[in-house]
Amino acid sequence: LCSRLPTVGTTIFTVMSRLAQECGAINLSQGFPDFNAEDILFERVAHWMRAGHNQYPPMAGCLPLREAVAAKIGTLYGTRYDVDTEITITAGATQALFTAVAACVHPGDEVIVFEPVYDSYVPSIELAGGKAVRLRLAAPDYRPDWTAVAAAITPRTRMIMINTPHNPTATVWQRTDLDRLAELVRGTGIIIVADEVYEHIVFDGVAHASCAAHAELAERSFVVSSFGKTYHITGWKVGYVVAPRELMAEFRKVHQFNVFTVNTPVQLALADYMADASRHAGLAAFYQARRDFFRSGLAGSRFELLPSRGTYFQLARYDAVSDLGDTAFCEYLTREVGVAAIPVSAFFADGHDDKVVRFCFAKNEATLATACEKLDAAF
Amino acid sequence: LCSRLPTVGTTIFTVMSRLAQECGAINLSQGFPDFNAEDILFERVAHWMRAGHNQYPPMAGCLPLREAVAAKIGTLYGTRYDVDTEITITAGATQALFTAVAACVHPGDEVIVFEPVYDSYVPSIELAGGKAVRLRLAAPDYRPDWTAVAAAITPRTRMIMINTPHNPTATVWQRTDLDRLAELVRGTGIIIVADEVYEHIVFDGVAHASCAAHAELAERSFVVSSFGKTYHITGWKVGYVVAPRELMAEFRKVHQFNVFTVNTPVQLALADYMADASRHAGLAAFYQARRDFFRSGLAGSRFELLPSRGTYFQLARYDAVSDLGDTAFCEYLTREVGVAAIPVSAFFADGHDDKVVRFCFAKNEATLATACEKLDAAF
Ligand SMILES: CSCCC(=O)C(=O)O
Ligand SMILES: CSCCC(=O)C(=O)O
Repeated sequence: LCSRLPTVGTTIFTVMSRLAQECGAINLSQGFPDFNAEDILFERVAHWMRAGHNQYPPMAGCLPLREAVAAKIGTLYGTRYDVDTEITITAGATQALFTAVAACVHPGDEVIVFEPVYDSYVPSIELAGGKAVRLRLAAPDYRPDWTAVAAAITPRTRMIMINTPHNPTATVWQRTDLDRLAELVRGTGIIIVADEVYEHIVFDGVAHASCAAHAELAERSFVVSSFGKTYHITGWKVGYVVAPRELMAEFRKVHQFNVFTVNTPVQLALADYMADASRHAGLAAFYQARRDFFRSGLAGSRFELLPSRGTYFQLARYDAVSDLGDTAFCEYLTREVGVAAIPVSAFFADGHDDKVVRFCFAKNEATLATACEKLDAAF
Repeated sequence: LCSRLPTVGTTIFTVMSRLAQECGAINLSQGFPDFNAEDILFERVAHWMRAGHNQYPPMAGCLPLREAVAAKIGTLYGTRYDVDTEITITAGATQALFTAVAACVHPGDEVIVFEPVYDSYVPSIELAGGKAVRLRLAAPDYRPDWTAVAAAITPRTRMIMINTPHNPTATVWQRTDLDRLAELVRGTGIIIVADEVYEHIVFDGVAHASCAAHAELAERSFVVSSFGKTYHITGWKVGYVVAPRELMAEFRKVHQFNVFTVNTPVQLALADYMADASRHAGLAAFYQARRDFFRSGLAGSRFELLPSRGTYFQLARYDAVSDLGDTAFCEYLTREVGVAAIPVSAFFADGHDDKVVRFCFAKNEATLATACEKLDAAF
C-alpha cells in the first residue's frame, strides 16, 4: 500500500482534543465553543424536518440560504454575488477549501501559502499534484513580507491561499494588505482562496477587510466562510463559498461529485436564523469580552500574550516559563497543568518553533476562569 | 482558466430534477423518497441539539454511531470491524467514494469501473490523475463479463469499483460474482471499492451479497453505505465506509482535510434510531411492494420493464413507443407526459444508448399511480 500523503499524520486538533479528554484537562486546544447555540435555531431545524424537508436540496444549496448569504455579503461588503451561479453551500469551510484546490490546481502548479498555515491547506494542494510554496509570517507580529511574496510568484503560480482573521496567529489583514496583494497578482491568472471563517470576529472596532469587498480581488477569489464559527455550531459542518461565475462553475464540477450537497433542514434553519443580522453583528463584541477576560486572567502569569485582533484564539509565548519545545510544552500543559493548548509548530512544515502556544477562548467564563487559575498557579 | 474536468457538465440528477420542477412533472428521475422519515428520528435530532451536542464530533464519527454500524454489519454479514480504526462516518456515500479514490489512486493508475456507471466515479478517478477503464454491462441483463474483467487487469490496476445493488440497472450481484472477483484479484494489490448504498433494498427474498461478508474481499475493500437511502433522509447527507485498518488510515488522511467530520446531532440521532434493527430489516419488503405496484401500473403499457432485483429503480425499454434517443425521450417524458425519468445513456462515457430509461419508485402510491396513469395514457 503506497500512500498518497506519506508525511501526513492525524490532524493536531484530533490529537490534542483526544489527549485533553484522556487527561480530563480543560480543552482550550481545538477551536470550538463549550456553550450551546440558541434554542430557536434548533426549533427551526426541527420545524423543517417535521415539515418533510429531508431530501436532496439543490446541489448548490437551498435557495433561501444562498439568498441570505448574498444579502449578508451585500450589506457588509457591498458586493452582489449571484445566488444561482456564484454561491455554494458546503459541508463546512474545510470542504470548500479542499474543493476549490481540487477544482483549480493542476499537477505541477505552485500554490503560495503563509506559515503558520492551517493544517488542511498543504495536504489539499499536494493531493491535487500541486506544490505548496511556503512563505513565513515571522513572530511576533506575523505580518506578510510583500517583497517575499513578489519574489515567490512564478509563471507556475496558480493560486495564493490567504486567511484573515488568521488562525492560529489571531492577526488580521487590513485593506492595504489586500491592495498589495491585488497589485502583485494584477495581469496574472492567479486565483485567490480567501479563508475568512472568522470574518465576524474582528476586535477593537476594526472592520473585517474581506476579499469579497475588494472589487479587484473579488474577481479572482474564492471567499470561504463558516456557519459553525459564526453561530456556535462547529459540529454541524456547514460553510459556504462565493466566487465569480467561471470559478464557481469549476468548483461545482468537483463539489457535485465530492459531497454533492448539504443537510437540507439545517440549511433551511440557518436561512431563517440569519434573517436577524444582529446574530452575526454581535459576535465581535461577544468574543472580545471573552478575549479580554482570558487575557486579564493571565496578566499576572509569566506568559507573554501576543495581540489577539481577531478569531477566538490567543497566542502565548512561554519561553520565560519553560525550555521545552512547544509540542512537549502542550503535552505538559495538558497532562500536568490540566489545560490543553495547540503547539504553533504544528502549523509549520519543518516544525519551526517560536515557543508559542495557542489557546481557544471560545468558552464559558467559568471555564476560562478555571483554566487561568491553573495556568497562573503553575507559572 | 483551465479546467481540471473539461468534459464534465452538471450531474444528470440536477439537470432532470430542475427540468421536472420547471415543468411541474412528477419527478421519478433523481432517486429520493417523496414521503417523510419518522418523527421519532427528528425528535432524537432535536434532543441532541438541545442537549448541547453541536460541536465537532471525533473525526471518524460519533462513537455510538460507529458502534451501531459495527453491530449491524456483525449481525448481517458476520464480520467484526473495529470501531476505532475501521469505520468512518462520511458526508454521504458520494463523499466516501470520492475520498477513497483520492486517498488511494495515484496519477497514472488504472481503475476498473462497470458501465453504466454512477456519474461520480469517473470524475473522481480522473481528478486523482487515474485512468478509468470502462467495462460494459450489456443490456438487457447487465451482467459482468468476467473474461473481460480478467483481460482488463494490468499491473497498473490500482482499484476496481463495484456497485451492488446496481444503480441504474437494478441488478444485484450474487456471492458467486464476488467469488469470481476475489479469484481475479488474488495475489494483486488491487483495492476494491464496493458501493452498497442499496444494501437493504434487495428483493424477492434474496440476501444482499456484501463485500463485507466476503472474508477474502473484505481484506482489500472499502465498503460504502448510506443512511439517506436506508432511512428516507437523502438530504441529510450521511453515509459510512468500512475498511481494514491500513486502508482506513489512508482514507482518514484525506477525510480529515476534506470534510473533517459530519453533523454531530444527526449522528447521535441515527445511532439511537438504528438500535431498532427492524428499521433497516423492513426496507426490502417496503420497497418491493412499491416496485410491484409501479410495475403493475405499467403492465398494460408498451414499455418493456426489465427486472428490478434491488435499489428503488426500475428500468424501462421504450423502443416500442419512440424512436427518440433516451435523453430526448426523457425530455419528452418530462415536458409532454409530465413524468421525469433518467436517460441511462448518461451513465456511459460515449453516450451509448440502449433505449432504456430509469424510473425511481421511492414514492407514495398516489404519486406512482398518477405517474403510471400518465405513462399508460401516453403509450
Ligand atoms: C477541524 S477541527 C479544528 C478547528 C479549528 O479550526 C481550530 O482549532 O483551529
Ligand atoms: C446525488 S443525487 C442522485 C441520487 C441518486 O443516487 C440517483 O438518482 O441515482
